[in-house]
Amino acid sequence: MACPIAQSLEILGEWWTPLILRDTVLFGITRFDELQQKLGIAPTVLTDRLNKLVDHGLLERRRYCLRPPRYEYVPTRAGRDTEPILEALAAWGRSWTQVPGTDRASKD
Amino acid sequence: MACPIAQSLEILGEWWTPLILRDTVLFGITRFDELQQKLGIAPTVLTDRLNKLVDHGLLERRRYCLRPPRYEYVPTRAGRDTEPILEALAAWGRSWTQVPGTDRASKD
Repeated sequence: MACPIAQSLEILGEWWTPLILRDTVLFGITRFDELQQKLGIAPTVLTDRLNKLVDHGLLERRRYCLRPPRYEYVPTRAGRDTEPILEALAAWGRSWTQVPGTDRASKD
Repeated sequence: MACPIAQSLEILGEWWTPLILRDTVLFGITRFDELQQKLGIAPTVLTDRLNKLVDHGLLERRRYCLRPPRYEYVPTRAGRDTEPILEALAAWGRSWTQVPGTDRASKD
């Protein structure tokens, strides 16, 4: 599709991908092991999502330990540019979704 | 999860849902038949996504024809409030994804 929203979703729209960007872009968590632990995601799924983000130029894969080989995933400029999307998602969530432990679900 | 991004994604993160919001919120396409035609989506999937958006208070279901019964899905305030997310997705797509028919894929 020529629509830029659809084009973005082709890259960003899979389950887990926005949360991986949240952790790498907003929180600076870049190491595979830390991402896997924080997200509680299957390693194979995390590997798949990270590879796609590297292939699309949003993350850069860097080895930070030779033995054993360990990798981190550092946001590129294209990756950092997803911050307005993440911030908009956060703002909507704060306004319109239920915060655990409260009864309020919206601005009304 | 307590994270507002994760909470938003629980509602907005499924395939098709952001494109349904694009059409209803940005383009004013509200009728089931028109949405189905424009998106080229299976009617059962469209029904599922629309029902979820109604259940979560982003769309309001209205009958606009008695016989045969026909329905439209009108954005509520919570639905219209997704516009900044859609605009941020569009901006990222314009900057960082390939526009069909061109060689440019990024700002660089």
